[in-house]
Amino acid sequence: MTVQSFNPPIRTLMGPGPSDVHPRILNALARPTIGHLDPVFVEMMDDVKGLLQYAFQTENELTMPVSAPGSAGMETCFVNLVEPGDKVIVCQNGVFGGRMKENVERCGGIAVMVEDEWGNAVDPAKVEQALESNPDAKIVAFVHAETSTGAQSDAKTLSELAHKHDCLVILDTVTSLGGTPVLIDEWQIDAVYSGTQKCLSCTPGISPVSFSERALDKVKNRETRVQSWFLDLNLVMGYWGSGQKRAYHHTAPVNALYGLHESLVMLKNEGLENAWKRHADNHDALKAGLEAMGLSFVVKPDERLPQLNSVTIPDGVDDATVRSRLLNEFNLEIGAGLGALAGKVWRIGLMGFSSRAENILLCVSALEAVLSDLNAPINSGVALKAIQEKLD
Amino acid sequence: MTVQSFNPPIRTLMGPGPSDVHPRILNALARPTIGHLDPVFVEMMDDVKGLLQYAFQTENELTMPVSAPGSAGMETCFVNLVEPGDKVIVCQNGVFGGRMKENVERCGGIAVMVEDEWGNAVDPAKVEQALESNPDAKIVAFVHAETSTGAQSDAKTLSELAHKHDCLVILDTVTSLGGTPVLIDEWQIDAVYSGTQKCLSCTPGISPVSFSERALDKVKNRETRVQSWFLDLNLVMGYWGSGQKRAYHHTAPVNALYGLHESLVMLKNEGLENAWKRHADNHDALKAGLEAMGLSFVVKPDERLPQLNSVTIPDGVDDATVRSRLLNEFNLEIGAGLGALAGKVWRIGLMGFSSRAENILLCVSALEAVLSDLNAPINSGVALKAIQEKLD
Repeated sequence: MTVQSFNPPIRTLMGPGPSDVHPRILNALARPTIGHLDPVFVEMMDDVKGLLQYAFQTENELTMPVSAPGSAGMETCFVNLVEPGDKVIVCQNGVFGGRMKENVERCGGIAVMVEDEWGNAVDPAKVEQALESNPDAKIVAFVHAETSTGAQSDAKTLSELAHKHDCLVILDTVTSLGGTPVLIDEWQIDAVYSGTQKCLSCTPGISPVSFSERALDKVKNRETRVQSWFLDLNLVMGYWGSGQKRAYHHTAPVNALYGLHESLVMLKNEGLENAWKRHADNHDALKAGLEAMGLSFVVKPDERLPQLNSVTIPDGVDDATVRSRLLNEFNLEIGAGLGALAGKVWRIGLMGFSSRAENILLCVSALEAVLSDLNAPINSGVALKAIQEKLD
Repeated sequence: MTVQSFNPPIRTLMGPGPSDVHPRILNALARPTIGHLDPVFVEMMDDVKGLLQYAFQTENELTMPVSAPGSAGMETCFVNLVEPGDKVIVCQNGVFGGRMKENVERCGGIAVMVEDEWGNAVDPAKVEQALESNPDAKIVAFVHAETSTGAQSDAKTLSELAHKHDCLVILDTVTSLGGTPVLIDEWQIDAVYSGTQKCLSCTPGISPVSFSERALDKVKNRETRVQSWFLDLNLVMGYWGSGQKRAYHHTAPVNALYGLHESLVMLKNEGLENAWKRHADNHDALKAGLEAMGLSFVVKPDERLPQLNSVTIPDGVDDATVRSRLLNEFNLEIGAGLGALAGKVWRIGLMGFSSRAENILLCVSALEAVLSDLNAPINSGVALKAIQEKLD
């Protein structure tokens, strides 16, 4: 055991998250701690709520950060909305749909699975079929942006289908929020969760959530108690609700919320549309470079997330060797495949502050250097020109 | 809504937590984020585990920080150890025993309550009686240091009683860890949780926990699944377990863990015995000042926590007025009473980095200034001398 201060190496984070955190946000984390019931802190909480409403494009009153990572945001949605015996249609096209199933079952619910191949978007036709076969279903849950594959599903269409069958909608936007359009009110989403460490470029540990009035009605009129005390919205609302009077529920992660606040101020100043365009443009440049090198994408173009790029590992190339060399020789982190895609793909993130021209150049040139050295079957010497043409 | 960076006022935090965070720890928070599976981060995780073993005085292999505040640490203990139908003896002598009851019931367990007056320690005789009347009880749960009152219970005796009746022990050390002796192995505690924002002087948001082998046997051999996916130790162990290979479970709060690491390094360098002595000595000085002024303590001396001082609000003095003036005029935060003690007591914390001579002087002199101005029945002009005699 080492007993001395920890000084991390300086990495460039181009995996599936955490993404590079802007120095402004790191500095915000280090501001002096104040009390979680301090009137000045309560004002900041109100600003965080307002800024999150902007980020989610919603007027939902209950829009707030859960004091724990995205997995706890997911759990907040499920434990509050699913009661024992409730049937939930869960769409799975990657790792996180499977985690939703776990959540439903641990709430005593019945998960009806709609499966799509990993790397594909959720197929609305299959969801419609499941809704028709299960008229007693109460909720449809799906992942907008599958972090494990880089596929984006059509949230608007899926939500419409669900509402047509009187179901509530639970949506995972962990990797999409701030990177591609997330329009909670326009899409009529009832419960949504996200993470701070992806396109918001904040440190990991907090999960923004938002709930519609219809969802809150359900929470307030449950027949059974929410199984989690920590995540019970009936209690959390006493602290994150409106008005100057806030009831103590748990001690909020004060400094982590300074960081989230700063990242949301930066997003508001950039403007959502500009952030979406930046993510799209930088994806085009990265794609040009990787394809010029001869690498191919897992997800087809119209379902592809610009901020999370899954590329197929060339034949004969060992996944871990390449990632270790990138990390050790260039301080560059890219992501491994998860689950069914482990060892077969790399996940290259261009999220938030990581979505910058200099990161694209570093990533593509470092990959080319390592793959060339390993005699992998790639085209050398052409990628940078392809990128430059896109960036111009 | 304000859209600009948040710059908190500089407070002195002498409430029930968060306590003042040392600048070294704030600086650690702002270090560059690296990946939660980065080999360098995994090494730091091992150091955090080792340092937590020291803080808890345990060799328990599963000693780790839960990625959420103390309430989630409590929930981790209950959801993993309580199965539906399990009978749990819950001791309540303040707010947090009541929260334990909520946890037991939400796990489908049966809570047998042992009640003591708020401000008193848990009475071992009552616990023994409850154990004898409930031979089918499986767990005894109690709070070592009641944050709502400032009373400390005899964990060693209560744990012995529980084990004599073949029960596991769940212990809350949120406010004691680092401030008064917490001896997990010597006391044979099976599951313990704490918080970072009290005597560890770190920012709020993380909950250190530790589990004995006996507790883990129970977790691994449950008949039902743990109801929380996020807190299921069977899954969390894949990430926080031993060895270089760590399975992704959730994205750890990387920078918050930098902060915890730094605070644990500082605790190790100071030495637990020295930290305990500092908390005891500073309590004596604060007590001398407050009593000279004519204020009295809620908890009797032999059950009193040195780091959390509940004092009775003098007759005719309005709680909120005093706390607001301390905050607005002197940037000093002290705590309100909770639950049954709301409006009747103040809670003055001397925890971690807040436990310093200068804080004692500020607190007592600011209280004297405000109370004098309100014509409260106190002795003026004698407190500082009483403090000085103790500090000499």
